[in-house]
Amino acid sequence: MVTSTILSDLGTEILIPACALVGIVFSLLQWFLVSKVSLSLDKPDAKHAFTESLIEEEEGVNDHNVVQKCAEIQNAISEGATSFLFTEYQYVGIFMIAFAVLIFVFLGSVEGFSTSYQQCTYDTTKMCKPALFTAVFSTVSFILGAITSVISGFLGMKIATYANARTTLEARKGVGKAFIVAFRSGAVMGFLLAANGLLVLYITINVFKIYYGDDWEGLFEAITGYGLGGSSMALFGRVGGGIYTKAADVGADLVGKVERNIPEDDPRNPAVIADNVGDNVGDIAGMGSDLFGSYAESSCAALVVASISSFGNNHDFTAMMYPLLISSVGILVCLITTLFATDIFEVKTVKEIEPSLKNQLIISTVLMTIGIALVSWIALPYSFTIFNFGVQKEVKNWQLFLCVGVGLWAGLIIGFVTEYYTSNAYSPVKDVADSCRTGAATNVIFGLALGYKSVIIPIFAIAISIFVSFSFAAMYGIAVAALGMLSTIATGLAIDAYGPISDNAGGIAEMAGMSHRIRERTDALDAAGNTTAAIGKGFAIGSAALVSLALFGAFVSRAEITTVDVLTPKVFIGLLVGAMLPYWFSAMTMKSVGKAALSMVEEVRRQFNTIPGLMEGTAKPDYATCVKISTDASIKEMIPPGALVMLTPLIVGIFFGVETLSGVLAGSLVSGVQIAISASNTGGAWDNAKKYIEAGASEHARTLGPKGSDAHKAAVIGDTVGDPLKDTSGPSLNILIKLMAVESLVFAPFFATHGGLLFKIF
Amino acid sequence: MVTSTILSDLGTEILIPACALVGIVFSLLQWFLVSKVSLSLDKPDAKHAFTESLIEEEEGVNDHNVVQKCAEIQNAISEGATSFLFTEYQYVGIFMIAFAVLIFVFLGSVEGFSTSYQQCTYDTTKMCKPALFTAVFSTVSFILGAITSVISGFLGMKIATYANARTTLEARKGVGKAFIVAFRSGAVMGFLLAANGLLVLYITINVFKIYYGDDWEGLFEAITGYGLGGSSMALFGRVGGGIYTKAADVGADLVGKVERNIPEDDPRNPAVIADNVGDNVGDIAGMGSDLFGSYAESSCAALVVASISSFGNNHDFTAMMYPLLISSVGILVCLITTLFATDIFEVKTVKEIEPSLKNQLIISTVLMTIGIALVSWIALPYSFTIFNFGVQKEVKNWQLFLCVGVGLWAGLIIGFVTEYYTSNAYSPVKDVADSCRTGAATNVIFGLALGYKSVIIPIFAIAISIFVSFSFAAMYGIAVAALGMLSTIATGLAIDAYGPISDNAGGIAEMAGMSHRIRERTDALDAAGNTTAAIGKGFAIGSAALVSLALFGAFVSRAEITTVDVLTPKVFIGLLVGAMLPYWFSAMTMKSVGKAALSMVEEVRRQFNTIPGLMEGTAKPDYATCVKISTDASIKEMIPPGALVMLTPLIVGIFFGVETLSGVLAGSLVSGVQIAISASNTGGAWDNAKKYIEAGASEHARTLGPKGSDAHKAAVIGDTVGDPLKDTSGPSLNILIKLMAVESLVFAPFFATHGGLLFKIF
Repeated sequence: MVTSTILSDLGTEILIPACALVGIVFSLLQWFLVSKVSLSLDKPDAKHAFTESLIEEEEGVNDHNVVQKCAEIQNAISEGATSFLFTEYQYVGIFMIAFAVLIFVFLGSVEGFSTSYQQCTYDTTKMCKPALFTAVFSTVSFILGAITSVISGFLGMKIATYANARTTLEARKGVGKAFIVAFRSGAVMGFLLAANGLLVLYITINVFKIYYGDDWEGLFEAITGYGLGGSSMALFGRVGGGIYTKAADVGADLVGKVERNIPEDDPRNPAVIADNVGDNVGDIAGMGSDLFGSYAESSCAALVVASISSFGNNHDFTAMMYPLLISSVGILVCLITTLFATDIFEVKTVKEIEPSLKNQLIISTVLMTIGIALVSWIALPYSFTIFNFGVQKEVKNWQLFLCVGVGLWAGLIIGFVTEYYTSNAYSPVKDVADSCRTGAATNVIFGLALGYKSVIIPIFAIAISIFVSFSFAAMYGIAVAALGMLSTIATGLAIDAYGPISDNAGGIAEMAGMSHRIRERTDALDAAGNTTAAIGKGFAIGSAALVSLALFGAFVSRAEITTVDVLTPKVFIGLLVGAMLPYWFSAMTMKSVGKAALSMVEEVRRQFNTIPGLMEGTAKPDYATCVKISTDASIKEMIPPGALVMLTPLIVGIFFGVETLSGVLAGSLVSGVQIAISASNTGGAWDNAKKYIEAGASEHARTLGPKGSDAHKAAVIGDTVGDPLKDTSGPSLNILIKLMAVESLVFAPFFATHGGLLFKIF
Repeated sequence: MVTSTILSDLGTEILIPACALVGIVFSLLQWFLVSKVSLSLDKPDAKHAFTESLIEEEEGVNDHNVVQKCAEIQNAISEGATSFLFTEYQYVGIFMIAFAVLIFVFLGSVEGFSTSYQQCTYDTTKMCKPALFTAVFSTVSFILGAITSVISGFLGMKIATYANARTTLEARKGVGKAFIVAFRSGAVMGFLLAANGLLVLYITINVFKIYYGDDWEGLFEAITGYGLGGSSMALFGRVGGGIYTKAADVGADLVGKVERNIPEDDPRNPAVIADNVGDNVGDIAGMGSDLFGSYAESSCAALVVASISSFGNNHDFTAMMYPLLISSVGILVCLITTLFATDIFEVKTVKEIEPSLKNQLIISTVLMTIGIALVSWIALPYSFTIFNFGVQKEVKNWQLFLCVGVGLWAGLIIGFVTEYYTSNAYSPVKDVADSCRTGAATNVIFGLALGYKSVIIPIFAIAISIFVSFSFAAMYGIAVAALGMLSTIATGLAIDAYGPISDNAGGIAEMAGMSHRIRERTDALDAAGNTTAAIGKGFAIGSAALVSLALFGAFVSRAEITTVDVLTPKVFIGLLVGAMLPYWFSAMTMKSVGKAALSMVEEVRRQFNTIPGLMEGTAKPDYATCVKISTDASIKEMIPPGALVMLTPLIVGIFFGVETLSGVLAGSLVSGVQIAISASNTGGAWDNAKKYIEAGASEHARTLGPKGSDAHKAAVIGDTVGDPLKDTSGPSLNILIKLMAVESLVFAPFFATHGGLLFKIF
């Protein structure tokens, strides 16, 4: 039945690292282009830049002081972000070591730390490597995943803090130039992350293979640790970064905008640096780790299912590497797509920003469809079998193409719907803005309703993807559908990272005292950035849903359950409690933001009240204390929600067993995905409703404004409420559902052997 | 194996109607006692009342004008409520007739409208009555359920509008007297509803039995229509009433409190009558229909499962009537419990109100535990079998006692947790009030977090009830656990109805221009009422969760599915989409409230701007137009959410089949229960945080107040946001999950025969 693939194993061995390297080189090239915008006055090209801008632009902005100020501010932001991430990594590092030990002990204990070969789990005619060694390799891959995640987040932050001031300076030359810098910087992060994730995974597989040889079942079981490592780091990155950024943002707004009536990002506001640092550690580093986690997990889920399907049983290396090949081609597709934004079409006016970003989504999706078809044709045999809860199911290569394709296109639909609900070009956000006429209460009511409504189409899109891919290729189909959605991750991350960079750029323009026109440009970039950030979150949650389901399926297979029957009390209570977890988790994170914001408010008020001349701009605020408050709060407050997510699968698995755990995973998945989408879109809509009133670009918008009007004040309240929803609790929920699933998968052998203590006792 | 029961069938035949009649008589007695507070000046006892109050109370309040004013206002409220309910019932009546036809056609078509006897579904050795006749009887019981629901809601409203002004007048004599009137009126409603629901069901069963004879399978299948009828009406009552009340409330507050700075319920506010009408049609009539629906559905779910268990197979009438006997004893228990509040202990100060209401919960639960033990002992054989998805499971009578008991006590726990999170005596609400210091945004963030957090313990309580009752007695266990939670419904409704009555009483006091001291008393009653309303909602949602699960189980049995496996794509997509439905539904209802409130705001503003002397109190506002706006909006806006709930099971069942429908039901259940609890508690907490600041009863509260301070303004915004959450979208979700389940159950024979078209075609 199995025919050989067109692409040879050697070809695969070359193609994957080659694509990864192309991605890395392209990313460095983009970095180089960004670096040409100089922040120092000594370099000759800096002078060149000035000459250029002198030709094009307005008076007064070429003041050398401005450049120096920008450089200073950038430095402060970069230092704050770096120092926070180092602090965070120290704490998380300790946790990671402890958890690595736990993995080793739990998995090693499955066969009583025996070093002798054992019967394989699925193919019981064969002998597999000892569980003890798989425990060792799982631990190693866990650590590798965690480190790769750290690198992804850290590099992203470095690039973003490198690019922010440069975007500001370029804004002097026009909105198009600024857009290119911000977008290129986003691309640096996108490509580095995609290529890096792929390369590390590829090398790990090849190194582990030296030990495992033909025991692919053990090999890919050990590899799942990579996904767990990636997602565990992402959890703390998202939650910690999310609390950091929103504590600062909310705190800064509450005193600055509401009480003191000074603009956003005003340098007199003591929390302003912390706020800008926050964008980089939360939205950039956190998002980077998150999407890397999704990528690693969906690859691992696909690989572990494939290893017990005909690919693994026949040791068909090329077909086995199908998930990695999809990602490899994805890098090439995104490279071409990026050129459309940076070189082929040029953004010249504010109105062209959003369409340009939207085109990125469309182009990458269309090209990637061809890419998937190609990979499915050359890297898969025409017919093969996929493991499906105990039996092998026959699948054709075109069916797998459809699985990946449906995930990819579902991603595009989610992106479009998110844009529709969060961009101020369409009626939903305009309606929300309009409701500000009657005050903050109606704004909040309309915003919440908008968020709830925005889940409908994405859920149908996800449901259809699941149905198609599940029907064709069971859990492997779901895993590759997730990979399909993530195959254009480089582009997705580029447009996503573009948002916070623009936000920072605006902040720097304000702090450096640049002119109103420049601030208008960065605001326009930022408004588009809010939408793209929401789109990025849409992708993140959509892919998280698919990934979790794939991991859930892999877990169920590994735990040797064949049905998860809702009509059994064990499963049903799991389902109910699982559906509650996202609420518990959100309660923790939102309360954390609220508490941290209150301390921030007190500190900011204290400074305004005690530092003479602060309000007049003659004295400098103490930025460092505010940075410290955010840092301390986020480090302290990220532990309880982190513990909830990490401990739940362990407690449920050990005491209640794998059936209840299956229920918990399914429940948290179907409930969490709704809250995550609605929270992120509600927040995005409020933010842009506020920007819509501020910008006053239409007749309707002008009736609501200007800044400082009652409607605007109401809009600011909505925006502030939305902050923790869209940047802390909402996006962290992706990780909740993914992480619980991957953790269950990694510990499945342990739970299957030693789990369900409570039911065993009674 | 089956031993006979201690209670004879004749005893059962006497006991049930006797208890129902006792309930009705007790309720009339309470009504008589309330009626002794006279609103007219002609009657001698009215004069007596004045003499009494003259002895006890302050100056100026015995002005005859005040009494007349109260009577006028009460009249206006009562008229508005009656006219709205009639309009609503007209529209819903048309729908009910159409739906009744649908039931007849769909169920009749199962056997092709054949009038010949058919093989029974479960006991295939017997012959059962033709499906066509079961279609007729189902339709009849559907209509009976709908009519009973209408009567329950309508009578509740009548009593509440009768009691509100009397409570106000009694408040002149002290808080204790006012409390008794409000509570007695609540009891009238509670007992009438419980007894009425029981009696109609009992009579229906006995009448249907004349036709069905020994075919209990068909008999109790037809009886399920009663639950569907009750819940369908409840849906429109809740949604329509919810939109009505909150459109008026939000509209009145936004202009009155925020813009014009006049107090709540000020007679100058044109929306004030609509607001007070709203409390009666939404919180009273809606809640009454809702809880009646839960009661009817859980009884039907228990009966339909029992009919195919040993009770039904052996035609053991007493055991079969176990659910009705539980409710009968419940009436007696609640009667005794009521005496504790009205006669045994007397409320004298404000501080005693909440404990007194809490004691009602505790006393009724303790007494009812004994009652359940008694019924389980005398009405059940020691050992019997219960149908459990295709097999018969052996159950002991003490196990069934535990099933009912666990439901009852879970209800108490939910009540306590709700009280903790919504009463301003505890830290959660105080924290929310405290967060108003930094403005509305932090208030909203803290409030949302509080709501999310408040789901944790209730969900565990529900999960434990499900686990225990499911393990002991499968779906029958769940159904009787729900009945256990609802067994003290008369007391539950009494304390629940007490809330809106007190709210109205406060409104009337304000409108009649009564003194500050009286308003303080009614405010205290009202604050306790917010908490009890939240407790009532907690019961409603907790029981709804259990009822839905029981109905879901009955549906699955009837549709002849033996497993609902999450690991099949059909079920999983159902689960995911089902979990989305509560969001869709909430989006609709919240947007409706928002829109209707905006039109109300415009009208109120218009009147303030165009009616000369309105603000000065020299001219009267046009109350009728505001009443009309609320009426029109709620009639129009209740249709889309109603259609969503009613059509989803039909569409999914017909096109996707029973497996997907099972997934939808499970998904909407586990997701909806979370949103419902959190929405209702968030709203209750905001309302009481505001009241906490207004009352200024502690040092801490005084630092936040007084009325009109910035913190108070922030609290008002939170309260306004909470209005649609706690009174429209939150409580309607109970009905969403129940109604979809009972509708699926009623149509199960049709879906099993003709459903799943889409999969049949492809």
